[in-house]
Amino acid sequence: MADMNKKIPYKIYLTEDEMPKQWYNLRADMKNKPAPLLNPGTLKPLTAEELAPIFCDELIAQELDDTTAYFDIPEEIFEYYKTYRPAPLMRAYNLEKALGTPAKIYYKFEGNNTSGSHKLNSALAQAYYAKKQGLKGVTTETGAGQWGTALSMACAYFDLDCKVYMVKVSYEQKPFRREVMKTYGASVTPSPSTTTAIGRKILEDHPGTTGSLGCAISEAVEVATTQEGYRYVLGSVLNQVLLHQSIIGLEAKAALDKYEITPDIIIGCAGGGSNLGGLIAPFMGEKLRGEKDYRIIAVEPASCPSFTRGKFAYDFCDTGMICPLAKMYTLGSGFIPSPNHAGGLRFHGMSSTLSQLYHDGLMEAVSVEQTSVFEAAEQFARTEGILPAPESSHAIRAAIDEALKCKESGEEKTILFGLTGTGYFDMVAYEKFHDGEMSDYIPTDEDLAAGFAGIPKFPGNEI
Amino acid sequence: MADMNKKIPYKIYLTEDEMPKQWYNLRADMKNKPAPLLNPGTLKPLTAEELAPIFCDELIAQELDDTTAYFDIPEEIFEYYKTYRPAPLMRAYNLEKALGTPAKIYYKFEGNNTSGSHKLNSALAQAYYAKKQGLKGVTTETGAGQWGTALSMACAYFDLDCKVYMVKVSYEQKPFRREVMKTYGASVTPSPSTTTAIGRKILEDHPGTTGSLGCAISEAVEVATTQEGYRYVLGSVLNQVLLHQSIIGLEAKAALDKYEITPDIIIGCAGGGSNLGGLIAPFMGEKLRGEKDYRIIAVEPASCPSFTRGKFAYDFCDTGMICPLAKMYTLGSGFIPSPNHAGGLRFHGMSSTLSQLYHDGLMEAVSVEQTSVFEAAEQFARTEGILPAPESSHAIRAAIDEALKCKESGEEKTILFGLTGTGYFDMVAYEKFHDGEMSDYIPTDEDLAAGFAGIPKFPGNEI
Repeated sequence: MADMNKKIPYKIYLTEDEMPKQWYNLRADMKNKPAPLLNPGTLKPLTAEELAPIFCDELIAQELDDTTAYFDIPEEIFEYYKTYRPAPLMRAYNLEKALGTPAKIYYKFEGNNTSGSHKLNSALAQAYYAKKQGLKGVTTETGAGQWGTALSMACAYFDLDCKVYMVKVSYEQKPFRREVMKTYGASVTPSPSTTTAIGRKILEDHPGTTGSLGCAISEAVEVATTQEGYRYVLGSVLNQVLLHQSIIGLEAKAALDKYEITPDIIIGCAGGGSNLGGLIAPFMGEKLRGEKDYRIIAVEPASCPSFTRGKFAYDFCDTGMICPLAKMYTLGSGFIPSPNHAGGLRFHGMSSTLSQLYHDGLMEAVSVEQTSVFEAAEQFARTEGILPAPESSHAIRAAIDEALKCKESGEEKTILFGLTGTGYFDMVAYEKFHDGEMSDYIPTDEDLAAGFAGIPKFPGNEI
Repeated sequence: MADMNKKIPYKIYLTEDEMPKQWYNLRADMKNKPAPLLNPGTLKPLTAEELAPIFCDELIAQELDDTTAYFDIPEEIFEYYKTYRPAPLMRAYNLEKALGTPAKIYYKFEGNNTSGSHKLNSALAQAYYAKKQGLKGVTTETGAGQWGTALSMACAYFDLDCKVYMVKVSYEQKPFRREVMKTYGASVTPSPSTTTAIGRKILEDHPGTTGSLGCAISEAVEVATTQEGYRYVLGSVLNQVLLHQSIIGLEAKAALDKYEITPDIIIGCAGGGSNLGGLIAPFMGEKLRGEKDYRIIAVEPASCPSFTRGKFAYDFCDTGMICPLAKMYTLGSGFIPSPNHAGGLRFHGMSSTLSQLYHDGLMEAVSVEQTSVFEAAEQFARTEGILPAPESSHAIRAAIDEALKCKESGEEKTILFGLTGTGYFDMVAYEKFHDGEMSDYIPTDEDLAAGFAGIPKFPGNEI
């Protein structure tokens, strides 16, 4: 056993030939399918026709398809995947040693590309389908900037115009993210802006506002639906995004299989669910088909606890309440995490697919507090070298906690977690941590009740 | 041929077993050895004893050894190398296509680690030898912060104290670099500081100064030589650094050999020479031994042209004139590039080894202007995805220029260049470029004459 162990390298890279050629659609193996998106006006399931002015046609088809298990990855996308994928599956030998745990810790590292995260996997797919449809460009919103960067890179590659609405406060506080996007040729507009009707209205109603993600979404959607040749794209939450992100889990599983490793526990951070849904996809598939069992753990911030403290109900996907209704674990579309919350994972809801799986008891969820997340991040950086993104560090925290339980019990469990990205653009949060200015915040029941009050009430949607 | 070509992946990764187990000491194959470091007081070659208070013993041995061709990489260093190495050898298919060139372009990418550059290769070695000697810690200076970050990571791994003197203007303008170093547990002091005698003197003589690399070196050396259990370490210029960095070239050559590829042209950016010396080492070795021939091109900024316009003479390695004299191509130790020069590659001199090779006609050198460097950087980012460091982009510029010559002539040359790092912490320079505020500067002959005037005069050192 020790000998077998010795042969496992620090980094397992698949060859190009071994890279998955198809995305896996987890929904195909679910007995209880995720509930469909509803038209907020009619409360009926949205049709492809209704979605066509907003999203690209092929992406709508993927969004609505819950029976096809595998989708071929188009060759043009695969060619770009090969420039930064396969992402390495890493063995955390140094972290294990520092923890003194008998657990074997693996992590799938998605940060080795300029966007700094897994977001590029879906950005490339969405840009490709937009180009294939003959569109001029796409619009999107970005907060911290990871998704906007990824989309800018994808649009540069496919020679597509890219309009990014960036929350104004981020635009001003994160000029470097903005410049990266500009390097890739994207236009980046601070939101709210005077370039849209909704932006002008918001500015009139709230002069001096620094913007919000909900507002940036509204502007991006307005531009996509009113300008000829544009569509709107989104980096998380949607089923299509989970489909594209399944490349994470498929690659991780192929690398593990190559060395005959079976994880006992799979851990991913969860905001809207793009990383978690992608990482767990093939493992959850085996679980759904009754072939294997895994403990699967979603990790979310205690300050934005949609899984662990949210309601499972239909709710708006955006703060502005103009987007479709999705059935999901939600804190209410008006919920905004405390300002001291650093990094992403601040979406009030959760992917419908993951919500259904959680509701059916197929996965667990834990919430962790910010300071302990940065402690884990720093320990990880010092032992494994990589400076992790705050989001990814939620998974690190949970992985370390599980490894320490193994230390107590003596169990030699195998842990796999998703390291979604790097923290190079998050040093303001690290600085707060170093300076002892980081605080934790757990919403009170009253805070949550205020959010829940915004969940729409209609027959069958009682919470 | 086309078929063979098809088999070459975007990224060639060696396995752990294929990674080089030894560093290669280029000097062993040089007929004309680089001239020894001189004691500026006696003008005699420096002995190991004289260097012992400043540098670690084993590193001094490496520094002075110009006959041993191979040094085993200690297992402890190799273990950490395995966490981020092998670095990929990339085929720039997308850049080739965008240029429409028949040339085949490869680049060795050293930026996939948190320090963001190749600097970690030597930082790990230097930290290891310091630990092995039983020292408490090491001191160093950093300007832009790549070297300081790399050393911080290495010291965290080997549990060594790390004191970084960071040029004050960088400390203030690059708070993120500083926080990365702190994440790894380093103490970062803005220089000049009140923690050293030389720092206090400089502050007294020049109140309000924002510091310089020369001043930071002086503080770091003072602390290393006056505090029990500390030594000073340096990230470039020295022979030992080139030795450690030979891992870049050895890996690149092993990857090329695996696919039976022979480069015609090898291109590296050159500041102090750490990357260029490492990249070309095994190729230059073959050239020196008469086994093969390659065109080898050093690329330097037109604003700091030590190879192309400097003098080959003994000069001080530091602005403060307290360090040893090295025989090298130099602009004079008082030469400071124009303030509009972005990024690194601002050292007034050049590695003695590379200087000798250049003097002997074994390599070429070109200088390139800043705006054209950023144009190349942006084209590279948009096609290859990776956002390059300004330093690395000098090599990109020259590689693109050579590839465009092939387009004209129709020659199918194979080009290899070194992509030393990523530009995530250099977005201020990119912003200037985007905003049209970047300018070029070429020193006049008068500017250079002023620098040359500072080169020490003694028999045999006439310029």
